[in-house]
Amino acid sequence: MSLSVNLASRLSEVSVKVKATLSALIPETMGPEQSLVNAMRYAVLGDGKFLRPLLVLESGGLFDVDGSRLLRVAAAIEVVHCYSLVHDDLPCMDDDDLRRGQPTVHKKFDEATAVLAGDALLSLAFEILSDAQTHFDPNVRIQLVSLLARIAGAKGMVGGQMMDMSGFQLGNDIAAISRMQRLKTGGLFGFAVESGAILGKASEKLHHNLNSFAHDFGLAFQIADDILDVVGNVETLGKAVGKDQSHGKATFVSVMGLEGAKAHLSYLCSQAKEHLHVFGARADILKALVDSVESRTI
Amino acid sequence: MSLSVNLASRLSEVSVKVKATLSALIPETMGPEQSLVNAMRYAVLGDGKFLRPLLVLESGGLFDVDGSRLLRVAAAIEVVHCYSLVHDDLPCMDDDDLRRGQPTVHKKFDEATAVLAGDALLSLAFEILSDAQTHFDPNVRIQLVSLLARIAGAKGMVGGQMMDMSGFQLGNDIAAISRMQRLKTGGLFGFAVESGAILGKASEKLHHNLNSFAHDFGLAFQIADDILDVVGNVETLGKAVGKDQSHGKATFVSVMGLEGAKAHLSYLCSQAKEHLHVFGARADILKALVDSVESRTI
Repeated sequence: MSLSVNLASRLSEVSVKVKATLSALIPETMGPEQSLVNAMRYAVLGDGKFLRPLLVLESGGLFDVDGSRLLRVAAAIEVVHCYSLVHDDLPCMDDDDLRRGQPTVHKKFDEATAVLAGDALLSLAFEILSDAQTHFDPNVRIQLVSLLARIAGAKGMVGGQMMDMSGFQLGNDIAAISRMQRLKTGGLFGFAVESGAILGKASEKLHHNLNSFAHDFGLAFQIADDILDVVGNVETLGKAVGKDQSHGKATFVSVMGLEGAKAHLSYLCSQAKEHLHVFGARADILKALVDSVESRTI
Repeated sequence: MSLSVNLASRLSEVSVKVKATLSALIPETMGPEQSLVNAMRYAVLGDGKFLRPLLVLESGGLFDVDGSRLLRVAAAIEVVHCYSLVHDDLPCMDDDDLRRGQPTVHKKFDEATAVLAGDALLSLAFEILSDAQTHFDPNVRIQLVSLLARIAGAKGMVGGQMMDMSGFQLGNDIAAISRMQRLKTGGLFGFAVESGAILGKASEKLHHNLNSFAHDFGLAFQIADDILDVVGNVETLGKAVGKDQSHGKATFVSVMGLEGAKAHLSYLCSQAKEHLHVFGARADILKALVDSVESRTI
């Protein structure tokens, strides 16, 4: 069986497990909070790719971390990812009506519910991570909380979104675009990989390898996304295409050109796999994931 | 010197210290995150009453907790309070233009910045609490994180705001209104008091006393607020008055009548002070705070 077949079946297995975990963590409810809870469930239980959960599970798997712990952390990270999508899609932000081919939360419910569901999801992530079921050692839990708080905040995802939104003059500066993307999306990829290493109490050397992998993978993922925004189509993506271009946003493609971006993507992907070499065949799924980013089939 | 004079000078001392702590935790910055950081500072450094920080400092003071630790927790709680105000004031929520006599964050900046500043503040609170400077014992820090996450989330502040917003039929049911207020505002008062007890490793009995105090104080505060909404004026409050009434919202006053609400306020205040009896003169400031809520001078 080829690696890409393995990846597809692994992703589908991960998505089933993580959805079940998320559904248990956000149980349906009657009463006054019902529409809030419905919006939270709608935001996290859609047809996401569950790439971040896959990264947690594969990274933790390298160190034989208990699966139920990994699933809780994977769920927490997916929750943070979805909170950021719900808020980024708001009319006052990116003003998107579609996400994964479905109405965005503020379209399906309303704006107030979308703001509140996002807020509740962010708190929920910290609730999950700080619970003793995630790890018996409070030192491990507080490390996860502290890292996530930094990655989510003003010097992380929110800061990146602000840079992206505010039309901050990125100009033709690859370094500035890379920094913005690292803040906005790279940090959470990094945390997903890092959390497996934290739970697995990885050595400093292996920590370093995984961090380097996550860095290259995150950038590669963003470049592939920029390329798809130009060459993709709305059916395969389930969201509006050509939006960055039409908004005049600086992207890797606008700065490097399509061929330049493809070359850079290829370079980052081979480097990302190089960092995984030390883990041998145990990292095969992660390597297949890199390949599918390079071929833009994910 | 009377207790109320002591309270006023203590509040002014607390506000200076907490503002200095907040200002250090959210330092001014240049570069692309500048407007985000400016909005965060604007949201937390205004002329708030700093009641929640006072509760942290006084509660922790009962157990001789180190002042610098208390200030960090006080700052984290004020940050969460301000995040909730920024989001609640948004046009899609309560649509308020004024807060503490000043333009609300989305008026002073814009809606996107207000959403993002709120998001960044919520993450910041968890970053502060999880940092080793808050307490050397990870067990203490994780307790604080876990409790705050629950109080802030869908079964806490966000759930309460959702109930308040969604026009959920509270009807004439005092129990339902009390529950909504406990979720929306009472939880954070409770956490402020509880955090002092956690940091001070209080006995179960004293924990219980403080929790009972916080419960009564929180409700009393809300009833006083409802009364002020009817009898206050815009100059003394720095925000719109009569808004709940004109929106037909169920409040303690609309259900109990003005005199009934005053009587209930008085009952809760005497009970709140009763719970503090065991602490003797060390709780004098807390008792004075209750008195000022009862006389609606705070």
